[in-house]
Amino acid sequence: MVNERTYETQRACPVARTLDVLGGRWTMLILRDLSFGRQKFSALQESLKGISANLLSDRLKTLEESGMIEQVAYSAHPPRFEYKLTAKGHAFVPVLVAMRAYGETWEPEQRHTAKQV
Amino acid sequence: MVNERTYETQRACPVARTLDVLGGRWTMLILRDLSFGRQKFSALQESLKGISANLLSDRLKTLEESGMIEQVAYSAHPPRFEYKLTAKGHAFVPVLVAMRAYGETWEPEQRHTAKQV
Repeated sequence: MVNERTYETQRACPVARTLDVLGGRWTMLILRDLSFGRQKFSALQESLKGISANLLSDRLKTLEESGMIEQVAYSAHPPRFEYKLTAKGHAFVPVLVAMRAYGETWEPEQRHTAKQV
Repeated sequence: MVNERTYETQRACPVARTLDVLGGRWTMLILRDLSFGRQKFSALQESLKGISANLLSDRLKTLEESGMIEQVAYSAHPPRFEYKLTAKGHAFVPVLVAMRAYGETWEPEQRHTAKQV
């Protein structure tokens, strides 16, 4: 991964350290979907319309390396895996809940213009 | 702004709508600093080591356009401005608080390797 979005000067800050891991495009939305029980690769790809299979694979791999998700086999023949949040991954859910509450109130869908900063 | 990080297929989701506005590099850290009372451009630039003046200006402008911050004059001669959170900006602080709690527990500074997903 290119570390274009890390904050090397900000390592004393727990918010910045969290964004170093989770600030990449799609990452928080993958955790959102996993917390909703969308655990198969195909279900994630369907939910995250517009993500490429390569990017989704890359994000899942890095989330696994960071200890937030794990692969669990749900079929032996053929071998099939799904993804589940670990304790560390579940610990991030309150951030998504806070973001949801903010978005529902302050970024209502009808006014949303997809402006990005 | 290039809308490279918006989620056009995800507009029904308040988390995605929030990330459309706030998911850009540095943006949440600017809100963090403003919530700590670093309100002058120079104080923000000092805190956010590594941000360019152009990028900081751009982020501040877009945060202002989105209604999260406002410029307030603190000197008339010469004209000088600082930035303050609006009610909408303050409403985002719980997200930062949740992120801080997560980061303090799960991304401790000593283990941090700046991996980014």
